[in-house]
Amino acid sequence: MNEQRIRTTQVPNHIGETVTLRGWVHAIRRVGKLAFLVLRDGWGTVQAVGKATSVEPLEQQRAGPETVVSIRGRVVANTAAPGGFELVEPCYEVLVPVEEGLPVALNDKSLAKAKLPTLLDHAPTVWRAPTRRAVLQISAAAMAGFRGTLHQEGFTEVQTPKIVSGATESGANVFGLDYFGEPAFLAQSPQLYKQMMVGVFERVFEVGPVFRAEPHATVRHLAEYVSLDVEFGFIEDHLEVARMLRTVLAGMTSTIEQRCASALRVLSASLPEVPEALPTISFGQARAMLAEAGQGPAQANDLAPSEERWLGQWAEREHESAWLVVTGYPMSKRPFYTHPSPSDAGASNSFDLLFRGTELVTGGQRLHRYADLVAAARGAGIALDSIEGYLEAFRYGMPPHGGFAIGLERFVTQLLGLENIRLGTLFPRDTNRAAP
Amino acid sequence: MNEQRIRTTQVPNHIGETVTLRGWVHAIRRVGKLAFLVLRDGWGTVQAVGKATSVEPLEQQRAGPETVVSIRGRVVANTAAPGGFELVEPCYEVLVPVEEGLPVALNDKSLAKAKLPTLLDHAPTVWRAPTRRAVLQISAAAMAGFRGTLHQEGFTEVQTPKIVSGATESGANVFGLDYFGEPAFLAQSPQLYKQMMVGVFERVFEVGPVFRAEPHATVRHLAEYVSLDVEFGFIEDHLEVARMLRTVLAGMTSTIEQRCASALRVLSASLPEVPEALPTISFGQARAMLAEAGQGPAQANDLAPSEERWLGQWAEREHESAWLVVTGYPMSKRPFYTHPSPSDAGASNSFDLLFRGTELVTGGQRLHRYADLVAAARGAGIALDSIEGYLEAFRYGMPPHGGFAIGLERFVTQLLGLENIRLGTLFPRDTNRAAP
Repeated sequence: MNEQRIRTTQVPNHIGETVTLRGWVHAIRRVGKLAFLVLRDGWGTVQAVGKATSVEPLEQQRAGPETVVSIRGRVVANTAAPGGFELVEPCYEVLVPVEEGLPVALNDKSLAKAKLPTLLDHAPTVWRAPTRRAVLQISAAAMAGFRGTLHQEGFTEVQTPKIVSGATESGANVFGLDYFGEPAFLAQSPQLYKQMMVGVFERVFEVGPVFRAEPHATVRHLAEYVSLDVEFGFIEDHLEVARMLRTVLAGMTSTIEQRCASALRVLSASLPEVPEALPTISFGQARAMLAEAGQGPAQANDLAPSEERWLGQWAEREHESAWLVVTGYPMSKRPFYTHPSPSDAGASNSFDLLFRGTELVTGGQRLHRYADLVAAARGAGIALDSIEGYLEAFRYGMPPHGGFAIGLERFVTQLLGLENIRLGTLFPRDTNRAAP
Repeated sequence: MNEQRIRTTQVPNHIGETVTLRGWVHAIRRVGKLAFLVLRDGWGTVQAVGKATSVEPLEQQRAGPETVVSIRGRVVANTAAPGGFELVEPCYEVLVPVEEGLPVALNDKSLAKAKLPTLLDHAPTVWRAPTRRAVLQISAAAMAGFRGTLHQEGFTEVQTPKIVSGATESGANVFGLDYFGEPAFLAQSPQLYKQMMVGVFERVFEVGPVFRAEPHATVRHLAEYVSLDVEFGFIEDHLEVARMLRTVLAGMTSTIEQRCASALRVLSASLPEVPEALPTISFGQARAMLAEAGQGPAQANDLAPSEERWLGQWAEREHESAWLVVTGYPMSKRPFYTHPSPSDAGASNSFDLLFRGTELVTGGQRLHRYADLVAAARGAGIALDSIEGYLEAFRYGMPPHGGFAIGLERFVTQLLGLENIRLGTLFPRDTNRAAP
């Protein structure tokens, strides 16, 4: 292993040179007197082509796909080769032989035919497929873009605790645990903590797991997911929060564009434009439009998934936008810390962002005056001593503030048009699954 | 709130101009006919000085420290002012008055006198103090430096699940939970998952919470902490892993240096050099040195905290290094997936990094051959079906690999010489504490 090894992505820089690569046997086939081998490493794939005898070291060890190998070969440009370059006169060394057949062959045809439980059960293998791991590369870039943009905007990253005592946001759907003999819970969101941190840094963000004991199985819910959380102070209202969301989404998509050219190509995916101003309608307007189009009642206190889909199509049609901000949801459907609209009775200073017709983000302005918050908590039946630390932050001065949370897996799933959020999640957790 | 607001850190760019700032009343005092007010915002502090009457708007509302205010004033350079600039002719507006006295005054003298439980109980307030929040700023920069360096080195960020079924690394000290009627656990580390991901990306890292039901209270253990995890493939041995650790530590400290000049100044902290090669000794050498110095027995299968302290002093003295790598710990003290030394019977290809005489990092090479791993798991009494997904990654080809994990809070605590890890942790969790 002492030889200098290059990555598949570095091959184009070494035309005419004899180089060493390491990785996995992604595919191997003989065509007449020739043997083709596609090597996959952590970054890409490259084809090697040689005499049929070149693959004898593999055959002798009965080494099939996923065998870990070292290849020495000369780099040539060949427009007929995938990626435009290949290795010739290859010399293979088996590092770790794999004799057993794979549970799912790592090509698109086999993957497309495989059933979802098979893909999930064998995730440690399946994620190796270039079209699968591209999803995770985009996910990583989305996180990087989220953080990078917020750092530019003067935000500080925090890591808040996931084991919490007392009530979390709402009492329902929490996982309980035995914490040294006392009851505790897994945080459903960092909501209360990120608000507390507005008192410290004004502008904070967090990337971390959240836990929801959702008892129903849907294609867009998980029991554990990664939440991209933002909260910031000295805001005017929830529209300022939505503008920050736009900035963040633009940063996320541009980072994906910069870092993931190859992943996007592998997936034949294109990124949606993030317009300078996201199309924005009020909840009342949304309901009126739905009613007029015969898509739903004029009065309701929420939007059904089918209604969100219709609104998404409307935004696409009228604004050429994959995004639609719906503001002013009824207070009755929002958590206790939500700031009411100062002008529209019953409405909140909150919003949802629909992305391609599915809710992706919830955000808004929060209550910031201690007395208002205490009254709201009481009204929601929350025991004040269970949120003592939270209330302390407000007792000692909290500016007007707001924020939002983006579900990472949902973002990636909708961005890439995956049919189930489980396909956009590394090792998904749901009512039936806590492994692998 | 419509007026353009500048941050305290932008004040030096506006000499002679009348500007608006917003933030919290950090301190206020009258000296004769003058009133001084220190404003704190999310990034720093600035002093305003005016006639005694200037603070009347605050007095009329009985608004004390932590009151949220807006200030308009003219920027002047004044070498006598803290930071070299101040606001004159200030005009204050109270945005959110705070009438109640603070649980702990946010100055260094009061904070130094306060007992630890007081500081922790009132963390939402206490973190506002400049000398406290500087710790979190450094923590955020440490994470950014960790990620930035690894991105440069070709690593991909992953987020692995925190709810796991079956065994984790070791059966002891795990938090159990009821997962939809089935038993599950909180991950003690992402160890098994990050190894699985070597099969996908070769080089992966993760920043996320880990959970340890440590039944004992010490100044350096927590029940939940942030783990900075790295794992990568195609390595030669554990020394290559230690070299990557050095690169990462250098990236972390240089990012702290770049981003946290003001936080370091507030804390009077200086960063340790990270030498080109970290001083490295074998476990056997360490024991022999300890025995020779009368600090411990020549034979033992671990290092006691007092022995680590002595070794740390030795590295400081002999190598002028805050860091010391100790390699080749006995296999008997290492987890089942540890790769044995090929040359030294009973020793492992693993290491600990001591930082200022305390263990900060554990790392090493892992077993990569399926048969070896199965035998090791069996030897450790681990049910193979409980690690089925993990084993699958090895059944289908895993290269030689290794990695390490840095405890974020411990890194920050030792870097800044804090006396208890709880002072380097946002909202610490221990046997007695799951709030705030």
